Amino acid sequence: MVKKLLVTLGALSLVFPAMAFADDPSGKSLDIGINSLWVMIAFVLVLLMQGGFILLETGSTRMKNAGHVAGKTIFTAGLAALIYWAIGYGIAFGGDGNGFIGWGNFFFNPGYAGDGEGVPQSVFFLFQLAFAAVSLSIAWGGFAERAKLSSYLIFTVVFIAVIYPVVAHWIWGGGWLAEDGAQDFAGSTVVHLSGALAAFAATVLLKPRIGKFNKDGSANEISGHNQVFTALSVLLLWVGWFGFNAGSTLAIGDGFFGYVGFTTMLGAGAGAFAALLISWAVLGKADITTTLNGTLAGLVAITASCAFVEPWAAVVIGLVAGVLIFFSAKFFEKIKVDDPIFALSVHGVAGIWGTLANGIFATQELAEKVGVGQGGLIDTGSWKQLWVQFESVVVAGAFVLAASFLVLGVMKLIMGFRVTEEQEIIGLDLSEHGAYGYPEQLKKAGQNNIQG
Amino acid sequence: MVKKLLVTLGALSLVFPAMAFADDPSGKSLDIGINSLWVMIAFVLVLLMQGGFILLETGSTRMKNAGHVAGKTIFTAGLAALIYWAIGYGIAFGGDGNGFIGWGNFFFNPGYAGDGEGVPQSVFFLFQLAFAAVSLSIAWGGFAERAKLSSYLIFTVVFIAVIYPVVAHWIWGGGWLAEDGAQDFAGSTVVHLSGALAAFAATVLLKPRIGKFNKDGSANEISGHNQVFTALSVLLLWVGWFGFNAGSTLAIGDGFFGYVGFTTMLGAGAGAFAALLISWAVLGKADITTTLNGTLAGLVAITASCAFVEPWAAVVIGLVAGVLIFFSAKFFEKIKVDDPIFALSVHGVAGIWGTLANGIFATQELAEKVGVGQGGLIDTGSWKQLWVQFESVVVAGAFVLAASFLVLGVMKLIMGFRVTEEQEIIGLDLSEHGAYGYPEQLKKAGQNNIQG
Amino acid sequence: MVKKLLVTLGALSLVFPAMAFADDPSGKSLDIGINSLWVMIAFVLVLLMQGGFILLETGSTRMKNAGHVAGKTIFTAGLAALIYWAIGYGIAFGGDGNGFIGWGNFFFNPGYAGDGEGVPQSVFFLFQLAFAAVSLSIAWGGFAERAKLSSYLIFTVVFIAVIYPVVAHWIWGGGWLAEDGAQDFAGSTVVHLSGALAAFAATVLLKPRIGKFNKDGSANEISGHNQVFTALSVLLLWVGWFGFNAGSTLAIGDGFFGYVGFTTMLGAGAGAFAALLISWAVLGKADITTTLNGTLAGLVAITASCAFVEPWAAVVIGLVAGVLIFFSAKFFEKIKVDDPIFALSVHGVAGIWGTLANGIFATQELAEKVGVGQGGLIDTGSWKQLWVQFESVVVAGAFVLAASFLVLGVMKLIMGFRVTEEQEIIGLDLSEHGAYGYPEQLKKAGQNNIQG
Repeated sequence: MVKKLLVTLGALSLVFPAMAFADDPSGKSLDIGINSLWVMIAFVLVLLMQGGFILLETGSTRMKNAGHVAGKTIFTAGLAALIYWAIGYGIAFGGDGNGFIGWGNFFFNPGYAGDGEGVPQSVFFLFQLAFAAVSLSIAWGGFAERAKLSSYLIFTVVFIAVIYPVVAHWIWGGGWLAEDGAQDFAGSTVVHLSGALAAFAATVLLKPRIGKFNKDGSANEISGHNQVFTALSVLLLWVGWFGFNAGSTLAIGDGFFGYVGFTTMLGAGAGAFAALLISWAVLGKADITTTLNGTLAGLVAITASCAFVEPWAAVVIGLVAGVLIFFSAKFFEKIKVDDPIFALSVHGVAGIWGTLANGIFATQELAEKVGVGQGGLIDTGSWKQLWVQFESVVVAGAFVLAASFLVLGVMKLIMGFRVTEEQEIIGLDLSEHGAYGYPEQLKKAGQNNIQG
Repeated sequence: MVKKLLVTLGALSLVFPAMAFADDPSGKSLDIGINSLWVMIAFVLVLLMQGGFILLETGSTRMKNAGHVAGKTIFTAGLAALIYWAIGYGIAFGGDGNGFIGWGNFFFNPGYAGDGEGVPQSVFFLFQLAFAAVSLSIAWGGFAERAKLSSYLIFTVVFIAVIYPVVAHWIWGGGWLAEDGAQDFAGSTVVHLSGALAAFAATVLLKPRIGKFNKDGSANEISGHNQVFTALSVLLLWVGWFGFNAGSTLAIGDGFFGYVGFTTMLGAGAGAFAALLISWAVLGKADITTTLNGTLAGLVAITASCAFVEPWAAVVIGLVAGVLIFFSAKFFEKIKVDDPIFALSVHGVAGIWGTLANGIFATQELAEKVGVGQGGLIDTGSWKQLWVQFESVVVAGAFVLAASFLVLGVMKLIMGFRVTEEQEIIGLDLSEHGAYGYPEQLKKAGQNNIQG
Repeated sequence: MVKKLLVTLGALSLVFPAMAFADDPSGKSLDIGINSLWVMIAFVLVLLMQGGFILLETGSTRMKNAGHVAGKTIFTAGLAALIYWAIGYGIAFGGDGNGFIGWGNFFFNPGYAGDGEGVPQSVFFLFQLAFAAVSLSIAWGGFAERAKLSSYLIFTVVFIAVIYPVVAHWIWGGGWLAEDGAQDFAGSTVVHLSGALAAFAATVLLKPRIGKFNKDGSANEISGHNQVFTALSVLLLWVGWFGFNAGSTLAIGDGFFGYVGFTTMLGAGAGAFAALLISWAVLGKADITTTLNGTLAGLVAITASCAFVEPWAAVVIGLVAGVLIFFSAKFFEKIKVDDPIFALSVHGVAGIWGTLANGIFATQELAEKVGVGQGGLIDTGSWKQLWVQFESVVVAGAFVLAASFLVLGVMKLIMGFRVTEEQEIIGLDLSEHGAYGYPEQLKKAGQNNIQG
């Protein structure tokens, strides 16, 4: 008796009014309830990935920029939430558009409850916003350690309002690539390749960091300052990826979300292992940075195909991704493109590989189960799906690349994109924010550090 | 066959005995099952916020105190669990009390299963405990870098056994403020303001840290040592807040929990953006600390009203919170109150703003949906709800302030509250625990550091 | 209308095909759906514990080894995923085996959907894999700061393919200890003791780190470099433990999973509090490391019995664990066993205590509810369950110890197990991976550090 009373009392200000499910003998509303809960949790996991990006980016860069790099993740994520609410969501999923752009639902009001037909709009919005924010955080890899603070604000607005939503609309919002049958289950192209190509545009326009390349064209290693941060970042991203991939089922259904998580795990493990071995074999030392990047590359690559392939194929996709990014990192260094956080290799090259791999390894049975496209080269003998995958990489990639170069190029002309040489040398913590992120350690180290 | 066998075998020691749901054609028990799962997950998310507090507090303080600051979060959380189990839960939710205090259920035994009427007592207890622990961690902001270790243990006992539970009882436990219709959905007042006012009592009684204020009354910046920690802390708190706010629905129901998450996200984003802009405008530099605090302030402010307001109002509440805490931090410095972790601004000022804002922006429709109080000034033209909100801030605030001053004042008289000057200078890691938290870095830096 | 359209469009590439639940008036499939979701989330929480281990191990060791220690957690977890998929899962749960070993399901393919009888195989696999990976991470405690990189790869293969799965089969896979009624709800023995004894074999074969013991037999403190990391690690492990213990119900059922979480929380709190007090009483200083280890010890100890005991017993089990590990850490130091991460005390001694405590405190009612074994000494007056618990500790322990000594001993003979003295002194970051994990801080400190 007492217990019941206290719950009644305790719940007065908290309790949820209606439990309408009891009136619904079909169980449909309960089914929606479970799915809503799953997508909400998946959103939280994808949001947690921003913690991974804070650690990945700071760990991969120098102490003098650490406060700037970490803090900008927070305020660009905050600004992204406002912009996606006001504009971006409507461009991606607004119902009044066409195959090329969505329209409507600006300053989105999702309603207080679900519509009884699927996951509530509010939850779907949060999940999609978290994906957009991940793509944005990938793009920052190209800005690292030398872009002006104002450029982060401007690019957040353009990328979240237009660039990312347009690609999301094409592939996930019922746009023309969706109609062509492009398979990108959780966003190897939409999220990872888009972010990586924006990073590419930025790093090309900014030019390499001071000291990265010598006059003779050879490259110097500018080591990140904290591998504990980068290792922990990989773990947080790995954890979040189960929301990212398995959450993209949007449903518990018959248990398929577990299978998607299963292939995701195999892809990650294979990427880690392959990268460890290839760096050990080639360099004679098992390079930690390569191994960490290989894990992420496995995850990026399996993202497109986690719902479309058999377990053995997930392992192959991960192994290839782990090897690929080792050589692609060397390649970008050779052509003098400075890629501080390895965004171009990990999210770009592995994103392309993952999208194409889907056209090779997708099975007909799983394509039918998911309801998008058809089986790939191995299972069906048909090149059709591989062609569609190639098309979506090229078209989506070209759009992001062109739009990013345009926006950042105009910004560079009008207001400048890069800090001064002096500001870069003293570090962005002091020059852009007026205080070190590590004041005790850097003040003590004194002048030496500033050269660092 | 093999698969079924292995599951049967594998589950022998694990499987859950009864699946009674199949006997319940109304689906009610399944509905309870989903809600139980959601509140359990929300509890885990709120517990994760303690990781945020570890990083927020250590990142905002100096290296010589880092082990102390981080470690005390763990053992006070542990002690809080025992005290809340033994006493606090019964004061907040015990069914034999009255409008001013709960009574009963001491050394709480929640039973092995739910009662078939709602979320199991065990899960509800964990969720409430996590809230109490958050309020306690906020209070530590006022103790930072100079309180004796023993004071943490004593204040944990009093705060978790009595102070916090009394306020929780008034507003959430069916107490007299609940009956007046006070709206505080997830605890802008109960959790945040309570913690902040305890911090205020502590910091006033302890007096400012050595070196914080000069003889002429001007203030020195005592920078925290690690902005990567503070940025990551904000992200972890942000993530946990979706358990805090959206979990306070205690139910999936018609999907309203998603709407609560939606307004929470808008409040956070607006707080981050506003704080960035105001610091940039006033200081000429976009201050990282202010931006991070603004994000938290947006979250604190939206906590009361996340279930009561429209999306546009959530944005306004967050924007105002972000600006407010910039000026309130200046104000506390001006009146020579030392607020190392910004608890007074972020949780106190933004907590008051959030509670009052609810009386301005709450809509009648949502007040009726939640079933507490009524619409606010803008929607109804009535000042009544704003008055109730004001009353609950004043009354709850006065109680926490008086109780905290009393307890800490008596403690100060009898056994002392602050470490000696020498102990404070060498740092609490050495003086209270006998070892540095960063032994390699501080031994190397040697004497210089000890002055730091 | 617009909203419905956009959801339809937006979901084209995402939506889950079948919602078969509506056809199942018994609600059984919905019940399975909720349980599947809970186990998936529990898996994610247990995976998050690897982040705890990254921080625990790096925080407890020196800066010169930080990149190595952190990075190896990622690649051994990745390799463990592949090996458990290929072999280990089949040894633990394969249906063609006998009471001593499982067989079958190698290169496991879990199917795309559940079988309608319980949690899908894919989800069950992920949950079990995460447990295996935790046990492996515990074992690394014995390898710390001096084992060759190659030994990590080899031991991962053997431990994940055979050693751990055999013990898991005996107790959880329907093996002979399960038939004897061994109670180990979430793995005090299977996970924690197994890991700790592998660590013991490693640390004995490797011998102590250079500088740990003096010629006269006295011990030196080799402090870990970052207590913020260790404190945060404890919090992350604590959070993950609710997946570990409460997730081991594999079901929401009647709400019992909440009770399991409830006792888990009490055990953790009691361990933290007891360890704080005992170190304060004995040393005169409240030692942070002891307090953190006490929290973990409370969690380890309650892991076996979280589903079998009353709340008061959970508190007693935690209190004893917190005291025990303080003295056991002293003991291991006295007998000159070097235990850098305290794996032997925290996971071994507390794991044994937890398993035995179950035979003392288990109640008949809960043993029947869970369906394994019977009540313990206090409730039933019978020594039988305590004997079974003792037997399972001895037998499982002897097997893990013998197997680990064998594998590591052979490895030591054939290829060597420990790095050279010079490599150990300069640190494994440079010697095994070619780069510091903290390049800016260690290059600056220069020669001094290398002695560190």
